[in-house]
Formats: sequence, structure tokens, C-alpha cells
Amino acid sequence: MPQDDPLRITLVGAGTIGLSFVALHFRYAVSLKALRLELTIHDSRPDIEEYILKTLPVYTKADITERTDVTGCFDVTLPDDRGLTRSNALIIDRDLESAVSKADIIQEQGPENAAFKTALWPKVEKHCPPGALLWSSTSGISASIQSTHMKDRSRLIVAHPWNPPLVMPLIEVVPSPYTSEKVISRTMKFWKGIGKVPVFLQQETTGFVGNRLAFALLREAIHLVNEGVASVEDIDSVMQNSLGPRWAISGPFKSYQAGGGEGGIEAFFKNIGGTVQACWEDAGKVNMGEGWEKNIYNQTNEAYGVVDTRGRDAKLLKVLDAAGHEVEESED
Amino acid sequence: MPQDDPLRITLVGAGTIGLSFVALHFRYAVSLKALRLELTIHDSRPDIEEYILKTLPVYTKADITERTDVTGCFDVTLPDDRGLTRSNALIIDRDLESAVSKADIIQEQGPENAAFKTALWPKVEKHCPPGALLWSSTSGISASIQSTHMKDRSRLIVAHPWNPPLVMPLIEVVPSPYTSEKVISRTMKFWKGIGKVPVFLQQETTGFVGNRLAFALLREAIHLVNEGVASVEDIDSVMQNSLGPRWAISGPFKSYQAGGGEGGIEAFFKNIGGTVQACWEDAGKVNMGEGWEKNIYNQTNEAYGVVDTRGRDAKLLKVLDAAGHEVEESED
Repeated sequence: MPQDDPLRITLVGAGTIGLSFVALHFRYAVSLKALRLELTIHDSRPDIEEYILKTLPVYTKADITERTDVTGCFDVTLPDDRGLTRSNALIIDRDLESAVSKADIIQEQGPENAAFKTALWPKVEKHCPPGALLWSSTSGISASIQSTHMKDRSRLIVAHPWNPPLVMPLIEVVPSPYTSEKVISRTMKFWKGIGKVPVFLQQETTGFVGNRLAFALLREAIHLVNEGVASVEDIDSVMQNSLGPRWAISGPFKSYQAGGGEGGIEAFFKNIGGTVQACWEDAGKVNMGEGWEKNIYNQTNEAYGVVDTRGRDAKLLKVLDAAGHEVEESED
Repeated sequence: MPQDDPLRITLVGAGTIGLSFVALHFRYAVSLKALRLELTIHDSRPDIEEYILKTLPVYTKADITERTDVTGCFDVTLPDDRGLTRSNALIIDRDLESAVSKADIIQEQGPENAAFKTALWPKVEKHCPPGALLWSSTSGISASIQSTHMKDRSRLIVAHPWNPPLVMPLIEVVPSPYTSEKVISRTMKFWKGIGKVPVFLQQETTGFVGNRLAFALLREAIHLVNEGVASVEDIDSVMQNSLGPRWAISGPFKSYQAGGGEGGIEAFFKNIGGTVQACWEDAGKVNMGEGWEKNIYNQTNEAYGVVDTRGRDAKLLKVLDAAGHEVEESED
């Protein structure tokens, strides 16, 4: 595209994840000085304008002023790293056809059900420019399923963020078997370019990678609470005081490579492979609906009540900074 | 004990974990100003003196000078938080009987095999003061097994550190069914007092809690590499850019409590319990010796070679500081 054209991103769905992306895109548009951004939000809620004007400033320090010349169009003004302010355009468009008609990127985070998504993409495909990138933020409905009714299934790819996307570096990039190489490489390039860490998955798999790993650990955690070995708070304390900080700077394989000394991970397994196998054989196999839920919910509610996510995110930024990530400054 | 008596800690075994504890105990003796420490090391390696004089300064900035009046006795001098230096005594004693004879605490991190440990404790019990605390740093051999041949099995408890204990806050405190309440409470009090986070486990369980959780996740990680979904480096990248930083500040239950918004963890499970269950049903069940090892070892070696643990530990201290732990200043 020519230099003077803005980058046009259309977000379909502006819930918690969507608004965090809105904030992310505006922040990066300001930090990447060559870029002008025109960000369109398409969302079915009737009070969408009011909601965004009220909620977006919670995510990022932006001045939002309505343009007098165009209805539903706003100037979003943020300071860059030298403290100079720059404005980019925010458009709220209830009509899907016009919302996607000029977009370079269409990023979907609508309701997490297959019917919504499989119905959406053929409409998007019909009205968007032929080169537009089509991304779903889904945490579990594969591009294979979502693209079922599309004419050109090669265009769709999953770009699964971690909550909150404004803070968390990871984007899981998951193609369907139909997704084109060009869509994959352009998607990876975009996310790297705005400072995220896109991880490309070779295959679609239930729950992708991060959630599968988390849920495997969660299953064992529930089992240990269930068996009375440790409380909900004790399990969390174990994580916060050992594995969490360790994995924040080196994942499990790198950790065990270090744990094995000069012999690396092979020496690690040689030394304690027996204990590893014994733990695997003894591992819990709880399932949903088996009755452990009430105890877990009660203990968790008693321990934490409603979690202060603003405070958590501020801390998260500090941890990411300490772990060596380049992070935007905290708002606090 | 009277005020002017030193605290006497005897470490049985001075490998990597042992030396990290030596450094930890000397650092805290300096920071807790009322305390004088007399730390005895008992280890069977023939060059133990040379080894400690050479290796201890790698763990902590200490001046170690041999006393002219007593053989095998050293002054270990460290600066406190005001930069004033203070000295405490380090004794190297190849004779177990005299090494434990005056100890307040005997902390074992010898070879990780049951025969060594079950043979050790009756000897320790026979020669140590009646009130001495007996701790094993084992990562897997329960106090029930270790105490088999002891006269008074109520005295032994596991205090399992995370590597490196100088840096990692967690101590898993695991009693046997014989361990007395008094031993439990004195053990918890000691670790809290020197700024660690002791987590008390209600029951002995294979691998305790931290390793069970880690190995459950590791099993799924190996499965995903095995299936070709992601590489070893990609799995580590996922962890370092999402779950690790998140769990460094809030464990899994607290995280899902936050993830469910005002409805907490119950709302979280209501929303995505189906995906959780699907992941559990699809989870990998790899076992040791099934042939996945070579690929994992090769990928890990190629990705990381020998890990720079000094650099890692410096980063770990920064992450812990950012997560809100009180940490000793980095040596770097």
C-alpha cells in the first residue's frame, strides 16, 4: 500500500479482549511513527459508542474526541515515547459490510461459538479487499471449522492472544491445513513488528498449546486439592514461589537442560526419570462433573474474592520487564 | 537456648544444593543481626575443604579465612545491609558423630537414595542433641521411608528446597505420619523467619506438589513435541510469554478466579469447562522409555547447549523482586 494510506484494522467484537486489542493497536500506532492507523470497531451491542468512550480510557491513557465532520468517527490521541501526542482514527460501524470494505486486517473476537464464526467469515470474505488478512482470536474453534463455508479457505488463520493482549507477549498462530504460506508469513511479521511474540503451531490441536499445558497442570492441581494434600492457596503459593518465576525466564525444557548440569536434560532424566515416571503413573485423572467443583470454587472464592486485575496487570508488566521483555510503561 | 549461644546448623552433604544452602544460611545470619551462626559441613569427598573454599565464593560474596587456632574452622565474612561486615564460623568435619553432636538443626542433602538416608538418621539421632531439628532436602524419598530405622520417628521431616535454594523462595515442608506437631511448627517458623515461603503439605505424596505439577505439564509438553505440534523451543517460548509470567504472580486457581471476572472460577469453568474437559481427554500419556527421548534431548541440546545458570539466577532474582518478593541483592 502507498505510504500515505493508513493501516486499516477492523475488529469484529469489542468485549474485554477486543478492547484490550484496541488499546494495543493504538499504542503501537503511536510508537511506530511511520504508521497512521484507522481502526474500525464492529460490534452488535446497542450502546457500543458509549461503552467504548467509557471503557477504552481504562485500558490506555487516550484522549478520545468525536469528529464533527463524520458520524461515528473519533480521534484517539496518545503520547509517544518522547511525550509528543499523535492522533489516529477510531470508527464505530454497525454495518459489517462497510466495516470490512477497506480493511487490511480483520480481527475477530466475537462470541466463542462455531455457528457465529462459520456464518461470519463468508460475509467478511465477500465484502473485504482481496488482500486483507483474516484473523480469529478464538481460544478453541479451529480455522478448519471456522472456514467451512468460505470460498477461499486459505485466507483464514487463528491468532490467539493471551489475556490481557495489551500486556501478554504471546500470540499463538494456528493455521488450518488450507491456510496459505503467505497468510502465515504476513501474520507472523505483523505480530513481531508490533513487539509481540507469535509462536507458530504446526498443527491444529484441541486447545492449542498454552491452554493444553495449563489444563494438564490444572488437572493435577485439582487432584491434589481433592486428595487433601494441599489447599487451593497452597497450590498457588507453590506455583508463585517456584515454577512460575522459573518458567517466566526459562520454559520446562530449558529448565531441565539447566537442571541436568553439563549433561543437560538427558542427565536430568537419567537422574530422576524414575521419579518423573512414578509421578505420571500416580497422576490424577479428574473430569468435569465429578463433584470436586464445589470444594475448589469455595476454597478459591474464600481465598481471593474478586481479583484486582488492574493491580495484577501492573505487576505482570514489572515481571515481564524483569524477565527481559520490552514492555510499554505501566499506566499506574 | 541462651542469647549468646550461636545457632548451630550442620549440613550433611555439600553438593550444588548444599553449597547454595551454606550461602543462604550465612547471608541470613548476617541480615538477622541478633544471630551468630556456627555452620558445620559434613561431606565424604576427600577434597571437601579445597572444594568449599573454591566454590562458596561463586554463590555469595564472602571472605573465607582459616582460623589459626582450630583446624578445619573458618571465618566467613559478609557485608550486612548497611555495608558493615560480620563474621560467622564455618567448620568442616569429616566425622559425623562430632559434626552433629552440638547441632540445633541437621539438614541432609546427601545422595538421593533410600539406603543412604535410612542408614544416616539412626546415627544422627544417636549423637545429636535431643531437641535438634532433623531435615531432609530430598525431592522424593519420604520421611516415612527415611525414618524406618529411627528410634524416634517423630523427629524427622522433609524440607524440600527449589533449586537454587539461595534464590528460590519455596520450601515444601512434608511430615511423615509420625512427625510431631512441635517439629512441624518449629520447622515452619525457621523458614518463615529467614524470609523463605514454606508450604506445608498435609500428606506425603509421590514427588510432593511442585514436581507433580511440573511433571504433569512436562508430560503434555513432551506429547506436543512428539506429535509435531510445536518444537521444544516453541513450547518454552509459550511458557515464557504467557503462563510463566502469569503464574509468577498468581497461581492457576487465582488466575482462573480472575479469568472468570465477577463470577470467578465458577464462571470460568462454566464458560470453558467443555474445552478443559476436551483437552484432558485428548492429553498425552507418554511414558519413560517409549522412544521420544532422543528427539527431545536433541532438540533441547541444539536449542540451548549448556545453560548459563549464573545469568539465569540473576534474572530470576529480578523477576522475584518484580513479583513482590523480598530478595537479596543480585551479586552481579
